[in-house]
Amino acid sequence: MKLGFIGLGKMGAFMVERLLNDGHDVVVYNRTPEKTKETEKKGAVAAYSLEELVSKLPAPKIVWLMIPSGDPVQNTIEQLIPLLSKDDIIIDGGNSYYKDSVRRSHELSVHGINYMDAGTSGGIWGLQLGYCVMVGGEKNIFDHCESVFRTLAPENGYRYIGKAGAGHYVKMIHNGIEYGMMQAYAEGFELMHKSDYNIDLHGVAELWDKGSVVRSWLLQLLANALKDDKDLSALKDYVEDSGEGRWTVLDGIEKSVPVNVIADSLFARFRSRQEESYGAKILAALRNEFGGHSVKKK
Amino acid sequence: MKLGFIGLGKMGAFMVERLLNDGHDVVVYNRTPEKTKETEKKGAVAAYSLEELVSKLPAPKIVWLMIPSGDPVQNTIEQLIPLLSKDDIIIDGGNSYYKDSVRRSHELSVHGINYMDAGTSGGIWGLQLGYCVMVGGEKNIFDHCESVFRTLAPENGYRYIGKAGAGHYVKMIHNGIEYGMMQAYAEGFELMHKSDYNIDLHGVAELWDKGSVVRSWLLQLLANALKDDKDLSALKDYVEDSGEGRWTVLDGIEKSVPVNVIADSLFARFRSRQEESYGAKILAALRNEFGGHSVKKK
Repeated sequence: MKLGFIGLGKMGAFMVERLLNDGHDVVVYNRTPEKTKETEKKGAVAAYSLEELVSKLPAPKIVWLMIPSGDPVQNTIEQLIPLLSKDDIIIDGGNSYYKDSVRRSHELSVHGINYMDAGTSGGIWGLQLGYCVMVGGEKNIFDHCESVFRTLAPENGYRYIGKAGAGHYVKMIHNGIEYGMMQAYAEGFELMHKSDYNIDLHGVAELWDKGSVVRSWLLQLLANALKDDKDLSALKDYVEDSGEGRWTVLDGIEKSVPVNVIADSLFARFRSRQEESYGAKILAALRNEFGGHSVKKK
Repeated sequence: MKLGFIGLGKMGAFMVERLLNDGHDVVVYNRTPEKTKETEKKGAVAAYSLEELVSKLPAPKIVWLMIPSGDPVQNTIEQLIPLLSKDDIIIDGGNSYYKDSVRRSHELSVHGINYMDAGTSGGIWGLQLGYCVMVGGEKNIFDHCESVFRTLAPENGYRYIGKAGAGHYVKMIHNGIEYGMMQAYAEGFELMHKSDYNIDLHGVAELWDKGSVVRSWLLQLLANALKDDKDLSALKDYVEDSGEGRWTVLDGIEKSVPVNVIADSLFARFRSRQEESYGAKILAALRNEFGGHSVKKK
């Protein structure tokens, strides 16, 4: 299939490579031209503007977006609208908020442009193993683009989930669950790290991969991470989040579903980023006020 | 190797079968004789008392315990002490609290009896796939019994962790992590179940197994569980716990490590078992007191 691909970051560049390897024709565009040139060397057709990218595609044009959620996706879609025609297709493969995807789907439909939301999981391992792809939008457009999803995914690793937003919704929940799983491992490994038993944590991660109930792909990655430095002494204890955990907690609030573990996992990341906790200072001050308990002064 | 095996419940019976299939000679005892007879048919030597079991073993005698933690393990060990001699070995393969295992190790050492704690994971799938085995105790006794561990485990699925209690300690942490992972899936799937998208939850569980970041053995089991009834309409929303989650949270309290996710997972199970929450009634009463908010009367 011939398609356009916008965004050649870590995920995007590997996805294009996977598409090229499987015989698709891919016209690529990236904000910075260096990556476009690199990808051209791998067999992609280079484009240095959205106009050029669109002009090199046959109708109905398919444009895959693999760019950061929020303004970058919004701005790119707005720039694409005048360049595209009725029946063309935009596939947002990034981590957009599903409500944005629902809105964009409606807005694009006014122009006759089809919008698909394709949540993709697999990180930097996807080139080798394939990406798990969760697709929302119109079923007939999914069918039309199916060969692209099939190429990106491992066997049976793509699926039509439902109408507009459903793909990004399921991807959002996926990431919320991921937060909880990661935090569960984090807490367990911190306890073992503090244990007097002087436990070989890399050994335990490898051991648990063999027949235990907690075996998972994340655990395999953890074994890799602990291989040479079980103290993780090269890292700062600072954890970013990219929005999907927040949205999952908001979904829990909207649906009145207690999502304690996912919320706690998100809050643990917030705490990791505080250089100083004003809340902790409030607690220290109050203990001092009512009980004369000593405080640590700066 | 010839060994005695006490406790032929779900885990124990399968472990004996795995041992027999790999050529070990196993003398078995169970509190109720029916299971002993069943296991005899599979090739085990039956014993109908602890005395008989011990009398049928060559020195140094190895006795594997696969019985519920707490009093059952304690009582069985107390009954075994007068029947065993110096250099004999007791292996506790159950889910004992690691501090009990440390204490028992010391108490048994007075009699010259070796005590090993072997945390085992894998549930009812262990017969087929092997059990992940985490072993604590003296290294030379581990070496002596290694062929037993090797048989029970999948390839590379057993490991010497450290001195007395280390095996059960690591198994405890394993189960604490398991609580958190399970709760993360539970929350995510509850959100999807309440979604307007009418998501095929069995399909999502199967999909995520293919290349997603949250793929795990638990997710495969979840796909099984959702296969024929995504509403899980045959189940009551009641979840037991068997102690290891509690002990993991206590370990966090002892070590001053925040284990929010594991604690929340444990508390979610407690809540699931409350027919009525007095705490929720307190909240309702207080809202009524200060704000005149309506309450639901019985």
